[in-house]
Amino acid sequence: MSLLIKGGTIVTHEESYQADLLCDGNLIVEIGQNLTPPEDAEIIDASGKLIMPGGIDPHTHMQLPFMGTVAKDDFASGTVAALAGGTTSIIDFVIPNPQQSLLEAYHQWRGWAEKSHANYSFHVAITWWDDSVGTEMENLVKNHGVNSFKHFMAYKNAIMATDDILVSSFTKCLELGAIPTVHAENGELVYHLQNKMVSQGITGPEGHPLSRPSSVEGEAANRAISIANTLGAPIYLVHVSTEEAVDAIRYAKDHGHTVFGEVLAGHLTVDDSVYQNTDWETAAAHVMSPPFRPKHHQDALWKGVQGGTLQTTATDHCAFCVEQKSMGKDDFSKIPNGTAGVEERMMVLWEKGVNEGKITPNEFVALTSTNTAKIFNLYPRKGCIRVGADADLVIWNPSASKVLSAKTHQSNIEHSIFEGMEINGIPETTICNGKLAWHEGKLLAKSGEGQYIDRPAYAPFYEALTKRQELNQPKAVNR
Amino acid sequence: MSLLIKGGTIVTHEESYQADLLCDGNLIVEIGQNLTPPEDAEIIDASGKLIMPGGIDPHTHMQLPFMGTVAKDDFASGTVAALAGGTTSIIDFVIPNPQQSLLEAYHQWRGWAEKSHANYSFHVAITWWDDSVGTEMENLVKNHGVNSFKHFMAYKNAIMATDDILVSSFTKCLELGAIPTVHAENGELVYHLQNKMVSQGITGPEGHPLSRPSSVEGEAANRAISIANTLGAPIYLVHVSTEEAVDAIRYAKDHGHTVFGEVLAGHLTVDDSVYQNTDWETAAAHVMSPPFRPKHHQDALWKGVQGGTLQTTATDHCAFCVEQKSMGKDDFSKIPNGTAGVEERMMVLWEKGVNEGKITPNEFVALTSTNTAKIFNLYPRKGCIRVGADADLVIWNPSASKVLSAKTHQSNIEHSIFEGMEINGIPETTICNGKLAWHEGKLLAKSGEGQYIDRPAYAPFYEALTKRQELNQPKAVNR
Amino acid sequence: MSLLIKGGTIVTHEESYQADLLCDGNLIVEIGQNLTPPEDAEIIDASGKLIMPGGIDPHTHMQLPFMGTVAKDDFASGTVAALAGGTTSIIDFVIPNPQQSLLEAYHQWRGWAEKSHANYSFHVAITWWDDSVGTEMENLVKNHGVNSFKHFMAYKNAIMATDDILVSSFTKCLELGAIPTVHAENGELVYHLQNKMVSQGITGPEGHPLSRPSSVEGEAANRAISIANTLGAPIYLVHVSTEEAVDAIRYAKDHGHTVFGEVLAGHLTVDDSVYQNTDWETAAAHVMSPPFRPKHHQDALWKGVQGGTLQTTATDHCAFCVEQKSMGKDDFSKIPNGTAGVEERMMVLWEKGVNEGKITPNEFVALTSTNTAKIFNLYPRKGCIRVGADADLVIWNPSASKVLSAKTHQSNIEHSIFEGMEINGIPETTICNGKLAWHEGKLLAKSGEGQYIDRPAYAPFYEALTKRQELNQPKAVNR
Amino acid sequence: MSLLIKGGTIVTHEESYQADLLCDGNLIVEIGQNLTPPEDAEIIDASGKLIMPGGIDPHTHMQLPFMGTVAKDDFASGTVAALAGGTTSIIDFVIPNPQQSLLEAYHQWRGWAEKSHANYSFHVAITWWDDSVGTEMENLVKNHGVNSFKHFMAYKNAIMATDDILVSSFTKCLELGAIPTVHAENGELVYHLQNKMVSQGITGPEGHPLSRPSSVEGEAANRAISIANTLGAPIYLVHVSTEEAVDAIRYAKDHGHTVFGEVLAGHLTVDDSVYQNTDWETAAAHVMSPPFRPKHHQDALWKGVQGGTLQTTATDHCAFCVEQKSMGKDDFSKIPNGTAGVEERMMVLWEKGVNEGKITPNEFVALTSTNTAKIFNLYPRKGCIRVGADADLVIWNPSASKVLSAKTHQSNIEHSIFEGMEINGIPETTICNGKLAWHEGKLLAKSGEGQYIDRPAYAPFYEALTKRQELNQPKAVNR
Repeated sequence: MSLLIKGGTIVTHEESYQADLLCDGNLIVEIGQNLTPPEDAEIIDASGKLIMPGGIDPHTHMQLPFMGTVAKDDFASGTVAALAGGTTSIIDFVIPNPQQSLLEAYHQWRGWAEKSHANYSFHVAITWWDDSVGTEMENLVKNHGVNSFKHFMAYKNAIMATDDILVSSFTKCLELGAIPTVHAENGELVYHLQNKMVSQGITGPEGHPLSRPSSVEGEAANRAISIANTLGAPIYLVHVSTEEAVDAIRYAKDHGHTVFGEVLAGHLTVDDSVYQNTDWETAAAHVMSPPFRPKHHQDALWKGVQGGTLQTTATDHCAFCVEQKSMGKDDFSKIPNGTAGVEERMMVLWEKGVNEGKITPNEFVALTSTNTAKIFNLYPRKGCIRVGADADLVIWNPSASKVLSAKTHQSNIEHSIFEGMEINGIPETTICNGKLAWHEGKLLAKSGEGQYIDRPAYAPFYEALTKRQELNQPKAVNR
Repeated sequence: MSLLIKGGTIVTHEESYQADLLCDGNLIVEIGQNLTPPEDAEIIDASGKLIMPGGIDPHTHMQLPFMGTVAKDDFASGTVAALAGGTTSIIDFVIPNPQQSLLEAYHQWRGWAEKSHANYSFHVAITWWDDSVGTEMENLVKNHGVNSFKHFMAYKNAIMATDDILVSSFTKCLELGAIPTVHAENGELVYHLQNKMVSQGITGPEGHPLSRPSSVEGEAANRAISIANTLGAPIYLVHVSTEEAVDAIRYAKDHGHTVFGEVLAGHLTVDDSVYQNTDWETAAAHVMSPPFRPKHHQDALWKGVQGGTLQTTATDHCAFCVEQKSMGKDDFSKIPNGTAGVEERMMVLWEKGVNEGKITPNEFVALTSTNTAKIFNLYPRKGCIRVGADADLVIWNPSASKVLSAKTHQSNIEHSIFEGMEINGIPETTICNGKLAWHEGKLLAKSGEGQYIDRPAYAPFYEALTKRQELNQPKAVNR
Repeated sequence: MSLLIKGGTIVTHEESYQADLLCDGNLIVEIGQNLTPPEDAEIIDASGKLIMPGGIDPHTHMQLPFMGTVAKDDFASGTVAALAGGTTSIIDFVIPNPQQSLLEAYHQWRGWAEKSHANYSFHVAITWWDDSVGTEMENLVKNHGVNSFKHFMAYKNAIMATDDILVSSFTKCLELGAIPTVHAENGELVYHLQNKMVSQGITGPEGHPLSRPSSVEGEAANRAISIANTLGAPIYLVHVSTEEAVDAIRYAKDHGHTVFGEVLAGHLTVDDSVYQNTDWETAAAHVMSPPFRPKHHQDALWKGVQGGTLQTTATDHCAFCVEQKSMGKDDFSKIPNGTAGVEERMMVLWEKGVNEGKITPNEFVALTSTNTAKIFNLYPRKGCIRVGADADLVIWNPSASKVLSAKTHQSNIEHSIFEGMEINGIPETTICNGKLAWHEGKLLAKSGEGQYIDRPAYAPFYEALTKRQELNQPKAVNR
Repeated sequence: MSLLIKGGTIVTHEESYQADLLCDGNLIVEIGQNLTPPEDAEIIDASGKLIMPGGIDPHTHMQLPFMGTVAKDDFASGTVAALAGGTTSIIDFVIPNPQQSLLEAYHQWRGWAEKSHANYSFHVAITWWDDSVGTEMENLVKNHGVNSFKHFMAYKNAIMATDDILVSSFTKCLELGAIPTVHAENGELVYHLQNKMVSQGITGPEGHPLSRPSSVEGEAANRAISIANTLGAPIYLVHVSTEEAVDAIRYAKDHGHTVFGEVLAGHLTVDDSVYQNTDWETAAAHVMSPPFRPKHHQDALWKGVQGGTLQTTATDHCAFCVEQKSMGKDDFSKIPNGTAGVEERMMVLWEKGVNEGKITPNEFVALTSTNTAKIFNLYPRKGCIRVGADADLVIWNPSASKVLSAKTHQSNIEHSIFEGMEINGIPETTICNGKLAWHEGKLLAKSGEGQYIDRPAYAPFYEALTKRQELNQPKAVNR
């Protein structure tokens, strides 16, 4: 069955123009003026609306087993939230336990994800190291469509990757044409400060940001970047939340290095005053890492977005309900870290970015979809609107409004970090794999219709990296 | 008649893929695997070669009346050089005399350009100001396809635009959706230093760089950017040649401003030692403004290119022969400023950029064509390869080599600033407006076949600027 | 008669130590433990208190004829305010009218200043240029103890110094071993924006900051610095009030240039919300140039102070009363620019600097006295406590408190920009030229007891500048 | 016996003036015009010469047991070299083995140092951690005159301090009013790169810089600074050799942090081409860590010195002879790391700094003596010329010249990294503890005359740090 979208304005990362668009199967098959609908075609009227590539959220944790519980949104409910917000693909994380086989964990996660309503792919975390890990990385890249590996620089005594692991893994990534990514926080400092806070009687959620000040992220960001640069590897920083980390990325980019930065919708718009809320539940609902920051960091993040230092937007969607959060009632360091957001990300970016003149609609598309597709080598299959590309689309109504609230969101949890934010310009119809997936406020996609997305190694940016490696071979002096 | 290019690899600013490409009339009409040639089609075998968008040089001065003479390459010979180097479009400059009507000058230049072999467009210089200038700017934007205006901050007592003119003109540009561009050098300092050098007996070409140190450019760059930012206007800096100017652009971009930077192939690769050449003719052949710089500036310029601070590459092609240069035999300040380069630009970028691992082939396309098309609102008509775009293309042979030399270049002058540079990877065939224009070392395009390119106002980047203007309306306090 | 200060802690820019201190005539003659008082000595008990060098305010305008009126505090009342606040010397400004002889103006100001209670010196402004100005500058430096010249980059159509004047004057300064100083605001932009605001009906005090946004200062700061650097001259920026200007100074210092920055107590602590005050008088009382800024600039200024980018603190004390301010009732651009502050400067720095842990007490001394003495070549006669130095001192009581208010200040005007600020740590006794000048809340110094301070040329920082000039002589190429 | 220096120009970090100077015992007892010599006084004619504070080298390793051997210059020969170069005090390092008692090691080093000809003090290295280390740190600070602790971030599997140790030790330093110092190189990267080089057959000295690229230092510098800042502690970086590390210090200082940087005379003047020397011995003689760097780093270091980012100069004097170096004949990583320099430091700074117009003579004094005295809390006992200060002086002849060479240096090794450098302006007489120690090319000081220097805790910069700590106490939210 085919789908014809008529009368809308197509908005890509580069241009905006009026055209009709025809999908057939899971592909875009025709773009043009006044297209004649095929006989069986479903027709959507997009007059006055914008047709954009479906969002790609490069950072979610559905169903994550973490801190003694499991995230409340699984791949079913989580991807419903995604579709409701115009996002058609997520890149989630396989996180093996230390000593666990990467492949084993990968298959576990693949199994959990089969019920997805939207498309999905996986970064794989490197939480430990021996030669077998390198071998499994190669297997994942060559046979399982994985081209990115995640490293947690925090979470000491759990999944923290120390410098020796970073060196080994980044070296391997370079060898495989994959991209290493990092959660940048200095785990030793966090550990020290958590203990200090608790020992000083600061046990509430306000202790969370006090144990993870911005310098802790800036340090780790700079360290990961420096290690990658030294080795000649590219690097991608997830959830950049501080001025210091923005500066570290910028410094590296300005010196010719290949560095990418991701920012969360939450860090762009929510500040650390939430942890002073006298309602424990509300304060705890905002506990995630990195934490929300003093306001001036938001300004730095937006500047980073505008100046090209940060290229992608994500959510770190990892939903824990009140009951789960209360595991840390007496000790903030035991509050499961995470919040929702996969549904709201694009709306928040539109309202605070496009409507405030910070970014153009084309930049909005780049930031919510195209850049992620390029960095993780899905482009032009994903992240663009052209004949032959996957028919993952969102139809945006710039004239419609809504107010965000946990009462109406799709996530399984009781709080929204965006509670009460008014949005002008909202996703009305989401098309995933060529089919209406969310339309007129209703879920049409079925569980299991989401597809796994293979991501090949050697994204285009690798071409210069490889050349540089050849040219920089060390040479012995003849004596 | 149609033209089929078979077996090549299409390289755009975003991606590389193998495909055949069919041109008909002046457009690209089909891209695909194993295309069947139409009956009358000419077929070009591009096996092992790259098909890229034809180059756009946003900064040339053909036939320029300047410093008491007229540049040796006119629109005929200059565009032949362009085509020989893979460049299919130039943006030249209309430079009215102070007090001259902008329209009158515009038509003069349009007349001169009719003999062009390649496509062309015009920036118009603002060299003086009264209300009529503003009115003519509006006419040029609305009726003559001009969307950019140039301002010389140097050349005191001639065409220098002082701050009051910059303020008036930038304000007008913003009102019209056009983009102001600047030649950034502090004219008062240059004037002072020229006099100082001559008074100290430094009359040879070595006085030229001494009278225009890098700080003179850095100052003016920062000033133009600050003025534009203060007014809410975008700004484009031509021929950025110094670390200071790169830093000024970067600072503005990092603070969320809309600033673009252009760099010349010459400044990326030639340093100021040329002015110490004891052969007067050779030294004088390198006299252009801004001058070639101490080596560390090259490093800063490349870093600017890699980090996204500089987006376009140009040449400032303005050719003066030995006889013309000798007008300044006794006083360097009388040497006509200018060198050739429109032919060599892309080759130099390939050799020093792609072959040295500084940029990818996709970035090469962005830097030599696409970014210019986007900034000056020609995209996607120019600067890309897709069905419906203009058939302006270059077929690049990455395996062929040549040595650059004035002996073999197309320009009418006796020196090349790139003399002796070995290039690995060269343009073999240039297609302009759907026809072979340069092929197998021969010119096939005819004089007059080049087309004037209309450039509409309000490039996409204006969308955020306009929004910001609305939001930032000053408000009176009620008292 | 001599004066013995017993039991206090001497605090200099470098060290703190307990000692008695004996003054005789106008000099410090002995420092040591348990000094025996000479027979006729007056004895001051400073137990629990700090003895610091008297403050030097390098930027005041007493009795200034400006914008059609004359500043309300003359050299008598202005220096009373200074002494009440611990400041024993001011450097005021001779501002010749365009075309007026510098010497003539200098003598005018010298005459006005004879009634001073505290010491004084003069920067001389360069408001126009011909050869005679250069000659008079030389005369002032060689015969009248002037070693600094001021340039207003704003105030178009009045005293604005355009780039050609800056170039000529800075060149002359370098030749004379003097230091050029600048009021950095782009006068063309201010003029344009003032007209724009008034034409849009923004005629109240809120129009003042709108016509002088921070970028206007950043631009001019960078321009003045670049011009000075290009010529090899040092430069001093008065009343730095913006992040952009701090960044410009820092950039230059980090590149090895000799640049100094001054910050006002007001800009460190007052923000631009004052212009939104619905009481016109209060809003107008804050009209000065540069205006008070959005809060994040204060943070940048403090960082500049802490990091060594800004070395001196001043006030730009230029007091206009309500009646005078009301000249601009219908047009903010006619409100006389200026506020008081010479009394409060040191207290504000102590409260917001030392008490908040931003600076040490030693740094406080450097910032309020020593650094100014060094830059303007008064050190070690002024700005330090040692045997042989001038006995200009303040005795500070770190345990006493007061609340700043126009009701109790010495200035002749009805408003204080520091109204209501609580100060913990205040000047209790001021000693000027070896005598008690202010003590126990009473003025003891007489009008006319203030001394004119000669400032010799060639401050120590000139030693490297001179060497560089020799080494950088341009050379002709032999051909 | 007393010593009268007549007719010289006293040059301090702040001023220069002609005066006679009388020493008695180990103190300066009088400064003035035409002093009358006491009866027994030795008189030195300093006409035409400069009298400056004796140099303090804050970074030497005499007699160091390291990499399987012991540094060739012991405290006797090393301090002779110091005196010959105008340096009267060194701060050396106690480096306990991991698990060794700090006190035990401290007493070992005190014993070795008893034969010193010049004055000495000790930083103590923290090479391991348990509670006893903290206790011993307290003992050293309170009872043994130690106020600084050193941390090696490199030398994995030997003395490397990992992040957990840095956190514990910096916390302790803050508690004690001491200052932590770091050797900043990422030990994991060095280890990885050493193995990589050797495995690729790069075993000569050229492998040394390849295994320690500048990014390795930049990373560690930033990490140490961030950790210190996060904890509220000050930090001092030894031997800063790279642009990246200068940038890291500057970034922190510009954000209000208390960070100090030291630079070696060698890194300011020697570049990495030495490792390409085809003579193994010469190349190996330059093996030290951090290694000499590509030339542009020198420019960054000088800019750092000029802009105030780097405050002290040192040598890391750690002399290994040819025989010792040959231990690494087959593997560069086994070449004992170290070079001489304590004799040449001040001369090199004078020639390349003062004579090239980079710094003034006053800044020279600050950089070679005063700043070190201030940071390590020896000021004004050391580092200044005033009555009551220690009589540690150097008499400098700005008109005399010499050529540096291993043939004439005092060190016990066969190579000098400054071989052949011509110096204009040399130390002729060194006075230590009030006595002629080096005069007319002869050593007059006796072994054992050097004094141990106690350094008290809580240098003046601590005053603001302590205040900030009080103000930043974390607070719990009442719920």
